Amino acid sequence: MHKVIFDTDPGVDDAMALLFLVRHPEIDLVGITTTFGNASIETTTRNALYLKQQWEIDAPVSKGSGDKYAAGEEIHPFPNHIHGDDGLGNIGVPDVVDVPLDPRTAQQFIIETVKAHPGEITLVAVGRMTNLANALKEAPEIAGLVKEVVIMGGAFDVPGNVTPAAEANIHGDAAAADAVMTAPWKVVVVGLDVTLKTAMSRATLAALAAKGGAAMQLLDRVSQFYIDFYDDEVTDSMVVHDTCACVYVVARELFTTRSGSIRVMTDSVGEGKTLQKPDGMRFGPSVWDGLPSQLACVDVDAENVMKLVEETLIRH
Amino acid sequence: MHKVIFDTDPGVDDAMALLFLVRHPEIDLVGITTTFGNASIETTTRNALYLKQQWEIDAPVSKGSGDKYAAGEEIHPFPNHIHGDDGLGNIGVPDVVDVPLDPRTAQQFIIETVKAHPGEITLVAVGRMTNLANALKEAPEIAGLVKEVVIMGGAFDVPGNVTPAAEANIHGDAAAADAVMTAPWKVVVVGLDVTLKTAMSRATLAALAAKGGAAMQLLDRVSQFYIDFYDDEVTDSMVVHDTCACVYVVARELFTTRSGSIRVMTDSVGEGKTLQKPDGMRFGPSVWDGLPSQLACVDVDAENVMKLVEETLIRH
Ligand SMILES: [Ca+2]
Ligand SMILES: [Ca+2]
Repeated sequence: MHKVIFDTDPGVDDAMALLFLVRHPEIDLVGITTTFGNASIETTTRNALYLKQQWEIDAPVSKGSGDKYAAGEEIHPFPNHIHGDDGLGNIGVPDVVDVPLDPRTAQQFIIETVKAHPGEITLVAVGRMTNLANALKEAPEIAGLVKEVVIMGGAFDVPGNVTPAAEANIHGDAAAADAVMTAPWKVVVVGLDVTLKTAMSRATLAALAAKGGAAMQLLDRVSQFYIDFYDDEVTDSMVVHDTCACVYVVARELFTTRSGSIRVMTDSVGEGKTLQKPDGMRFGPSVWDGLPSQLACVDVDAENVMKLVEETLIRH
Repeated sequence: MHKVIFDTDPGVDDAMALLFLVRHPEIDLVGITTTFGNASIETTTRNALYLKQQWEIDAPVSKGSGDKYAAGEEIHPFPNHIHGDDGLGNIGVPDVVDVPLDPRTAQQFIIETVKAHPGEITLVAVGRMTNLANALKEAPEIAGLVKEVVIMGGAFDVPGNVTPAAEANIHGDAAAADAVMTAPWKVVVVGLDVTLKTAMSRATLAALAAKGGAAMQLLDRVSQFYIDFYDDEVTDSMVVHDTCACVYVVARELFTTRSGSIRVMTDSVGEGKTLQKPDGMRFGPSVWDGLPSQLACVDVDAENVMKLVEETLIRH
């Protein structure tokens, strides 16, 4: 069993990823921590509570920071045109959801849970990296206690999506991402190099909704707006960015990885660009030197990833 | 016939590129302008004069700037371990070469020659982009008068060579490169994405030396030190970065290109990284918007490039 803390900004593809985690038999979801990105921290937290309620999830929800890692940094606008004004595809999520939050902040929850289960917790982070960076800053010793950090974010050998340089989760708090990539824990980065290869068609989603009960039916409704947005990149389908990272946790053999230290550009033109120094390649002295090697996913067996996603989403 | 001004920092692979230009029947080499990079401006200029003398080249040599485009910016150290202390593989180039320089600076030479031959000049730039950027700054109108700019430099979908982010020619004067890429002229970037695929073995070089006369024999001697350096990347071979860009001028059909505006990171971690916004892809607003589309080479028919290089180097 993999004990997972899911750091998320629901978010349509976050919703699918959450259902995948809840329904996969080898995942023990111990907590949900919210981050801003697809919408404000208030909206993503409300949405996490809504999905917890609708899907009867046991794991607690902790609210994360609404500010970037570097104090006072300007927050980029939220992509309402992708995830809807309510962050869940404009399905009409109630303004208030009557489910209690965990009293701890996301940062506190991460630190305490990691310390309570040394060597056992996998952090799956599919939003901006702010909570992870804040937790590391407050308690650097957790780096040695986390089993693994699996991130959805970044674009190594392909263009970004929010700018030609940068993928949205990394662009949204580049300094946080740089802190997470360069810390002495094991990070696996599942970025656009692979997630753009994993898509689910509207027809498949509908077929799963017919078999997967009320939870899958909600996911189907939530996803329609997002599929419309993606229409000029993939035909009548949704790219399953965040779920792809969750699949890594249980089926890493489906991914091809490259090892090497990773830095994130935090300035001007390249803000949010992820760049790796592949192990064994020779360069002059650089700011990649002396840092831990992390894994960047560079290829994926998309067919079997999607097969596993489909099988898992209808388990109940 | 292609009228070419060759902006170069000889440099071992520059020497091969120069011999290619001199010997290719469809190239009319109208001038050589020197830039710093593989060695200081004094050394690269001396080397250009030395090759002009040894190879009896008619084209004049103009000395370029020894300072970066942005006044006062620190100059990175020169790679003596790759090109030798003399910039030509430590073959013992005389300190002074008794061949006159053109009285004009590189920048003046470029401006005057482009204006004298409107629409006819191809600028082939295989060192730092300083002279081109300076020429553009002094006489922006040349952008509309140049036929094409072909650059050896940059790394789009692959790591750099001087840092994990950056290729050496671009890293050496990133602000100059950004000015060149974003100007309203037609730029083709022949970067590491393709040049790392074009290599010549020591044995092939020796065979060409046996057939190509004194000029090829000199090139063979010049190249030995460089081949030793590259030994852990390509076995007993030299990567022919600069010649690859020259081949583009006469055989563009051997290259696969991608069109889109290009920016160069000029700051901190990513300094010198080249990033393209592919035409037709959708992003949020970014600093790539409203700029001319340029061509980045993303693949190459390396076998036929090398065949053409070999055929050309022994013509005499
Ligand atoms: Ca997300
Ligand atoms: Ca050169």
